Amino acid sequence: MKKKVLVFGSTGSVGKNSLEIIEQNKNKFEVIGICGNKNVNQLIKQVRKFRPKYVCLTDQDAACQLKKRTKIKFKLFSGKQGLGDFSSIKSDISIMAISGIDCLRPLLINIEKSKRIALANKEAIVVGAKFIFRKAKKYKTEIIPVDSEINAIFQLLKLTNFKQEDLEKIYITASGGSLLNYDKKSLSKVSAAEVLNHPTWKMGKRITIDSATLVNKGFEVVEAHNFFNISYEKIEILLHRQSLVHAMVKLNDQTCFSCLYPPNMKNPISFALSYPKRVKRAVSAKDKKKYSLSYQAVPYRKFPLLRIILEAAQRDDNSLVVLNACDEIAVDYFLRNKISFVQIEKILKKIFKIYPAKQVKSIKDVYFWDNWARKKTKEILGEK
Amino acid sequence: MKKKVLVFGSTGSVGKNSLEIIEQNKNKFEVIGICGNKNVNQLIKQVRKFRPKYVCLTDQDAACQLKKRTKIKFKLFSGKQGLGDFSSIKSDISIMAISGIDCLRPLLINIEKSKRIALANKEAIVVGAKFIFRKAKKYKTEIIPVDSEINAIFQLLKLTNFKQEDLEKIYITASGGSLLNYDKKSLSKVSAAEVLNHPTWKMGKRITIDSATLVNKGFEVVEAHNFFNISYEKIEILLHRQSLVHAMVKLNDQTCFSCLYPPNMKNPISFALSYPKRVKRAVSAKDKKKYSLSYQAVPYRKFPLLRIILEAAQRDDNSLVVLNACDEIAVDYFLRNKISFVQIEKILKKIFKIYPAKQVKSIKDVYFWDNWARKKTKEILGEK
Repeated sequence: MKKKVLVFGSTGSVGKNSLEIIEQNKNKFEVIGICGNKNVNQLIKQVRKFRPKYVCLTDQDAACQLKKRTKIKFKLFSGKQGLGDFSSIKSDISIMAISGIDCLRPLLINIEKSKRIALANKEAIVVGAKFIFRKAKKYKTEIIPVDSEINAIFQLLKLTNFKQEDLEKIYITASGGSLLNYDKKSLSKVSAAEVLNHPTWKMGKRITIDSATLVNKGFEVVEAHNFFNISYEKIEILLHRQSLVHAMVKLNDQTCFSCLYPPNMKNPISFALSYPKRVKRAVSAKDKKKYSLSYQAVPYRKFPLLRIILEAAQRDDNSLVVLNACDEIAVDYFLRNKISFVQIEKILKKIFKIYPAKQVKSIKDVYFWDNWARKKTKEILGEK
Repeated sequence: MKKKVLVFGSTGSVGKNSLEIIEQNKNKFEVIGICGNKNVNQLIKQVRKFRPKYVCLTDQDAACQLKKRTKIKFKLFSGKQGLGDFSSIKSDISIMAISGIDCLRPLLINIEKSKRIALANKEAIVVGAKFIFRKAKKYKTEIIPVDSEINAIFQLLKLTNFKQEDLEKIYITASGGSLLNYDKKSLSKVSAAEVLNHPTWKMGKRITIDSATLVNKGFEVVEAHNFFNISYEKIEILLHRQSLVHAMVKLNDQTCFSCLYPPNMKNPISFALSYPKRVKRAVSAKDKKKYSLSYQAVPYRKFPLLRIILEAAQRDDNSLVVLNACDEIAVDYFLRNKISFVQIEKILKKIFKIYPAKQVKSIKDVYFWDNWARKKTKEILGEK
């Protein structure tokens, strides 16, 4: 059975990303309703592609235009009253991606009708968390956060068996926004275009401005507190320019777990749609680069022994036993100044060439080949 | 009941760290036996501190010396036969920290007698994984990897509900060792002291040399394959100089989870001892610095609005409703060139000062204060 999906705010950034994911997973999800504000052009495209039963435009004039410009049949809702009625439609999953406080009313209505809310709006939680969660509890509606940092915390806490009493800190990362390195003087003259030029995220306008003032980050702390019932002292913000790590959990034995994905909303949206399953996704070349953080690829050329060990590992014979013994002897010789460092490499290469490949069928075989390799290594290195 | 612990290789680096942790958690663990090679001085210290019932020295002469130098009573084992007998002692947890292939025999014997093996040795797995795991299964003995990378994978896989079919990659990190930036010419002349000078880890000699050749990393790939039954194609090595992230798991929706802790063995040892519980530990100032990775502290001074939001969050009144509405209006004004960027900050500060603090008891209150703040903000900004 396909899951029936309503998309609130379908013409915005999260809405469009959501529809893209649903399109790639047509066998799993069916768009039954979409709702926008007044972007008629975008909405017509979406109507053509997804043929939803229900369409809502909160702007009355835009709704009239839409009706005129297409012959496709759907039930049209418009205006504030229309949005309320649209919010009363039953669904398996509702993606709540209307921005600002305008999301609060449809959210509260739809909680009664939907099995799961994928919540991409943060203002509703900031101003009305207790009313939202109380109602969700009453109607047994699941609310999954789509906001990337909160989604990452959700993944870190809900997918793991961490115990509440082991939790020392929750870290939320902040890119610092577009103005982090501006001085006071430049700040006073900054243009909207400059502020909207976020270094890592492509998002709606208000959230991009809120990222520059970190108001957005403050809101996320409020979200984390309300979603997971974590005290404010346990929530900390870390500046992390790459926006690759979205959240981190520190347990009280000082072990940390972090959740990473490229800075676009497709990950948290597809998670919120498919949880507890996962939708397989390929990563774009552009995003792949962003994965770098402080990691690099291994320069295998520089470490020929690593290649040898990995090759040996896949041979399923006595080679690992032989190489381990040879390495132990060679390292010992090097430490005692009997051979140079580069000779370690040479002797392992040599042994790997000349050892007689045999199956290891018992622990006796392990000791036999260990012994053989020790002798052979010493022999080659000139000590019997 | 205290857990009875045997420490194999108690005078080595992992052994000493283990005893330190046990000392800090005397109420939970009791050392019943320690075993070293020939470091009599160190062993005497440990005997005095922990008063174990059983002591083993594999070097016969060292065993004689030990007997002469202390009056403390314990059962002494010595030589190869002695190690075998010592390995037959029953325990709740055995820490296996003998280095090299010498660990294999005591490990295989002790698997029959111990409930849990905290395995710090990797060579045994490299040469004899199938015999070890077969025996552990037969005797229902738990083997918990202490090797940091493998321990991190264990934590990432065993503490989570990731499904095998969702697993795309396991990443093991490599510091690159002490010689990563040496050219060929310098490599040919490198001294043992230079190779032993590892940039991030303090470890035994062989493993430090093996880290410079990356033989050690190859062995870890073999460990990961055998411990978690993961195919070699799914295991990848990443160069990560800081040795802070020890392993990372990538699911096929491109979400990654990484496990971090400072580069010392205390974390994985205390985990292996206390799992599934955790032993609370404070982190040293030195280690705290190392946590930095690509994160920085937030320069709160630069973001006064963040402070205001966080303060509002804890007031439990209508302040978040008011600030959210004010922010929405202010951002809109800025986007329409009606106010400058810095005025966003000013107006939020002002509203936060003048708003009448009230409890929010219903969703009606939310709308009331939202409306109030919008009007007030517009009034102050000069538009009614």
